[in-house]
Amino acid sequence: MAYRAAVVGGSGYTGAELLRLTAAHPELDTVHVTAESNAGTVVADLYPSLAGAYGAMAFEPLDVAALDGLDVAFLALPHGESQRLVPDLVGRVGRVVDLGADFRLPAGAYEQWYGTDHGAPELLDEFAYGLPELFRPDLCSHRHVAAPGCYPTAAALALAPLLSHALVEPTGIVVDAMSGVSGRGRGLSAPSLYGEANETVTPYGLLTHRHTGEIEHALSRVAGGAVQVLFTPHLVPMTRGILATCHARPAVDGLSTATLLDAYHDAYGAEPFVVVTEAPPTTKATLGANSAHVTVRFDERTGSVLALAAIDNLVKGASGQALQALNAVLELPETTGLSAIGLVP
Amino acid sequence: MAYRAAVVGGSGYTGAELLRLTAAHPELDTVHVTAESNAGTVVADLYPSLAGAYGAMAFEPLDVAALDGLDVAFLALPHGESQRLVPDLVGRVGRVVDLGADFRLPAGAYEQWYGTDHGAPELLDEFAYGLPELFRPDLCSHRHVAAPGCYPTAAALALAPLLSHALVEPTGIVVDAMSGVSGRGRGLSAPSLYGEANETVTPYGLLTHRHTGEIEHALSRVAGGAVQVLFTPHLVPMTRGILATCHARPAVDGLSTATLLDAYHDAYGAEPFVVVTEAPPTTKATLGANSAHVTVRFDERTGSVLALAAIDNLVKGASGQALQALNAVLELPETTGLSAIGLVP
Amino acid sequence: MAYRAAVVGGSGYTGAELLRLTAAHPELDTVHVTAESNAGTVVADLYPSLAGAYGAMAFEPLDVAALDGLDVAFLALPHGESQRLVPDLVGRVGRVVDLGADFRLPAGAYEQWYGTDHGAPELLDEFAYGLPELFRPDLCSHRHVAAPGCYPTAAALALAPLLSHALVEPTGIVVDAMSGVSGRGRGLSAPSLYGEANETVTPYGLLTHRHTGEIEHALSRVAGGAVQVLFTPHLVPMTRGILATCHARPAVDGLSTATLLDAYHDAYGAEPFVVVTEAPPTTKATLGANSAHVTVRFDERTGSVLALAAIDNLVKGASGQALQALNAVLELPETTGLSAIGLVP
Amino acid sequence: MAYRAAVVGGSGYTGAELLRLTAAHPELDTVHVTAESNAGTVVADLYPSLAGAYGAMAFEPLDVAALDGLDVAFLALPHGESQRLVPDLVGRVGRVVDLGADFRLPAGAYEQWYGTDHGAPELLDEFAYGLPELFRPDLCSHRHVAAPGCYPTAAALALAPLLSHALVEPTGIVVDAMSGVSGRGRGLSAPSLYGEANETVTPYGLLTHRHTGEIEHALSRVAGGAVQVLFTPHLVPMTRGILATCHARPAVDGLSTATLLDAYHDAYGAEPFVVVTEAPPTTKATLGANSAHVTVRFDERTGSVLALAAIDNLVKGASGQALQALNAVLELPETTGLSAIGLVP
Repeated sequence: MAYRAAVVGGSGYTGAELLRLTAAHPELDTVHVTAESNAGTVVADLYPSLAGAYGAMAFEPLDVAALDGLDVAFLALPHGESQRLVPDLVGRVGRVVDLGADFRLPAGAYEQWYGTDHGAPELLDEFAYGLPELFRPDLCSHRHVAAPGCYPTAAALALAPLLSHALVEPTGIVVDAMSGVSGRGRGLSAPSLYGEANETVTPYGLLTHRHTGEIEHALSRVAGGAVQVLFTPHLVPMTRGILATCHARPAVDGLSTATLLDAYHDAYGAEPFVVVTEAPPTTKATLGANSAHVTVRFDERTGSVLALAAIDNLVKGASGQALQALNAVLELPETTGLSAIGLVP
Repeated sequence: MAYRAAVVGGSGYTGAELLRLTAAHPELDTVHVTAESNAGTVVADLYPSLAGAYGAMAFEPLDVAALDGLDVAFLALPHGESQRLVPDLVGRVGRVVDLGADFRLPAGAYEQWYGTDHGAPELLDEFAYGLPELFRPDLCSHRHVAAPGCYPTAAALALAPLLSHALVEPTGIVVDAMSGVSGRGRGLSAPSLYGEANETVTPYGLLTHRHTGEIEHALSRVAGGAVQVLFTPHLVPMTRGILATCHARPAVDGLSTATLLDAYHDAYGAEPFVVVTEAPPTTKATLGANSAHVTVRFDERTGSVLALAAIDNLVKGASGQALQALNAVLELPETTGLSAIGLVP
Repeated sequence: MAYRAAVVGGSGYTGAELLRLTAAHPELDTVHVTAESNAGTVVADLYPSLAGAYGAMAFEPLDVAALDGLDVAFLALPHGESQRLVPDLVGRVGRVVDLGADFRLPAGAYEQWYGTDHGAPELLDEFAYGLPELFRPDLCSHRHVAAPGCYPTAAALALAPLLSHALVEPTGIVVDAMSGVSGRGRGLSAPSLYGEANETVTPYGLLTHRHTGEIEHALSRVAGGAVQVLFTPHLVPMTRGILATCHARPAVDGLSTATLLDAYHDAYGAEPFVVVTEAPPTTKATLGANSAHVTVRFDERTGSVLALAAIDNLVKGASGQALQALNAVLELPETTGLSAIGLVP
Repeated sequence: MAYRAAVVGGSGYTGAELLRLTAAHPELDTVHVTAESNAGTVVADLYPSLAGAYGAMAFEPLDVAALDGLDVAFLALPHGESQRLVPDLVGRVGRVVDLGADFRLPAGAYEQWYGTDHGAPELLDEFAYGLPELFRPDLCSHRHVAAPGCYPTAAALALAPLLSHALVEPTGIVVDAMSGVSGRGRGLSAPSLYGEANETVTPYGLLTHRHTGEIEHALSRVAGGAVQVLFTPHLVPMTRGILATCHARPAVDGLSTATLLDAYHDAYGAEPFVVVTEAPPTTKATLGANSAHVTVRFDERTGSVLALAAIDNLVKGASGQALQALNAVLELPETTGLSAIGLVP
């Protein structure tokens, strides 16, 4: 018997990706999909790619009562909207999986980085931060899931084995990350135009990108103490993919690339979705897949550590990881309905 | 019990795509993969995207004896090599699925378009032309499969309903097609370089592209008489996808877009991989999927018919269709292991 | 002494391209630039690429009186706005160069294709259709210029030598054209988003694209009689460039590729901006340049003519050609301030 | 009277870019162009974009005697070849401008990073390192020019104002840079294929990229003491452009973004090709231009400095800067024949 699910906010890119992925999930049946501006539109008219899976299903306006009794509600909403919806929703559906930023941070950190009070702080504890490779036990002990952000997923997977073993200093960490343009979503704005985003690298959010807080929070939990990161994102001309190039200073003597790679193999060897590579990872290897490819180096010359991770921002960085985490809270095998094979070339 | 398969020529793009697709096929077990120049290389080193599926499997040099007793041999070889290999191979394996051009045409047409005698003309009759939507009965009556070319698949699916009902003249047909650069394969050549292929449209093979013969042959079978096509391919800056824009002159009175769309729905309504669209099809809707999206128009002003089809050249245009046809010859459901959902955005 | 010019509607892509090109024009001094939504913005803040040329110049709201006495006003406005502005403007400035569609067609054809009456039909005769290679004499006998559309420029240059000598039939002509996404302008709309336009071919405007009327009008003048064209545009994932692939049926016996190439060399041999190529033209060869590359073939097998042209849609297809035509009306050398060299790779 | 120049190695991307740029240079007349593998090919056949400038000129095999008496020889050769050619060449031509790495480093550093003895160490002192903004006086005192590498140009311009005033520590500097694929040149190799480079970020040369030595050497000269950098390059899917994102630790108290921007304006305010921006620079703003766009930030939260620079790798990062430096040694205005305006969109 399949779990019955709704996708709330299904017309954006993470919503559409949920529709693509849940169509291939043998235990989920997506019976309802909402969208505000596209309400009334047939899903396959907006996304012809989904024609084979959703027939005549149309986007509906959001009516919370229509979700009553569903097993799962995925929320793929603009940041800030989930916290308004969730207090009403948690009594109606079995599980909420929020793909926005609203339930990822403690109230204080949320307010620091988002510049506003949280609207439902009493519900924060009901949400596990859904990054299974680092916080799997949380998924057994929580009912709902806050799916991590795209950049934090890449940065945390790249750096976690270093910080969990205190191999590097918790300050002075640098994360330079490059993202495909789909990370900006499907909203209309000049920087998302083809003519603006093509054939250029665009750094943005210098010093202040909100994912900084989420990266620091996730890594601080891993490290067992405060971690400080300078995070600089760049848009690069591709649709999907994030590469995080991370720098840290050693906290112990005697590091080498070989010992670091061993530590990464130890950390991730049993993970079905993390591939530790000898060669530098590329985002293309993860295209359309729920995988993360990571590697690490110790530079003897400058005495510093370099760690890199590649993901598909819409899969492991959003909708795929949401599904992986849902699998975990539903006690299904985490790999159910998810592939680790990328679309290459 | 799974069928045991080999991919011969697995290091090129159609070979790698076979590895991606067969990894998700529940009835196929790829136990052997060969490659000449990459023999000895671990599959996942050349294609890290496949790390999750092929573990330590390495490309091996081709040794026909090593294929003895396999159920299936996919051949993803440069044009001309299959006809040298197949005479030896047919006695050793259950089914040959050739992705090259060697077994697609009758001997005469082969010699006309490829400029050389065919090396194994006596085996041509053992191969079905594996375009199930148009020639499904062949797949029940043949042991081996010649998977169609990418452009011919798009052009034939776009035009077949017009020609099967003699709605258009069999001469004066124009096919202008645009292909992603992966259609050139993984071989090293200047036009395949990023710096040459990016940010440009490159028409090529004017008047003489070999797929012309295959398009004409397939459509002549559909029409029950000689069809003549002027085919002009263009490289466009994307990795995957083919769009075929086709023009024909009406052979009957009273055509309209509505009646033509009805004819297309009649022809393809039961096909799991063909979507007849009202809106113009885009290649992206088929990315990574075995689907074809087609539409048709009648232009009252100029009195002409316009038909368009979009596919992923490496899936419906190559490896996916090969698998679909193999499913048919093995009497498995044609959709086994194949998805009609595209990767969007 | 330089001519003093204004760019009206300078914040869109053709406007910005005018600013780029006029900065390199030794006889033009752009002293005023307007933009509605971006009024008040410093030009170099919106277009940092222009920082070296425009210093602190800012976009201003349009105030027609501020243009009084200027030698030249370029209009780079949304279609329909020029005809409202021009009646007031022609008495204030020396020359109007309109890059929109408002003054390209006779009133009847305008109304047919644009579905509305023309707002200033009495002024149509004051505008030359600014395609110098085909209608150069017009530029001596008119005061103002209607710069041609991008697709019409490519299609007309590709087909004109065939029609001017009645080598092909004036009906049954097919133009399949591919354009970079900048052709859609800088306005916010979903199809212009990177995530929608990247890695896909998007046919659009099937049967009804307004440039059909302009192509037919230009070629009818060349042919000296009515020409009918079926024009199908496609967006391809690149920023700039148009390739027009054109098909026509011979009207005379004895055509060959050699004789057709001779005719093209005769037609264009003295033109500084048209290159007749043996090899198929590519859009990249014209990137950033005012050049058009054209070739032609006669297909003996199907008895049809194939002609191709490549241009940069923003230069020869818009702002560059506008400048070339202005040079002509000002009796400057047509090449003044314009380059025929493309940016490759 | 124009200087007569040759381009040696004119068929690669930096060579073709020299041909593009010198065609627009009023004081240079390129009378000779060599290429090994393309000898005999007409320049405009290989690069149709240059058809308007080079007529029937063909690539010739290299014959040093044929260069006798020329005023300038540009060398656009694979690394290592210049040092074999230059000893013979310096007595034959007035000025050598080498675009390779052979004459950029002192012999010791060359041997460290290139792993081989230098073939002409006695000539190193005759070459100025042609980065005019940082080492202009050298250009008055040397006869020949070693044009800087692409990554070093971007990194050095980003970081120089910090190091020249000892505002940051000379160690612990991180440079993460992203380059378009043309940086790999026109040689045939798998990573340069469109199918490999498109839609992906590819880090490479981890810890060991040879430009590290050049970055350190240039910045050490600026700082007046040893500078140590960890440099990590990434290929991103665009043809041209480099963005360098650089991190350094303050060496003084009281830094702020405002004071740092002031320092950059002081350093570069009189430079015609360097634009200090408030907003993050993008590579597209420099496309086809000899400009560099730079900005800087002080992050109070983490106490670190972030500096960014964007260039076109083939212009300011190669052929344009070579021309700028040649202008300087010839005592022409540095801007002669060079534009600071980028091709946008």
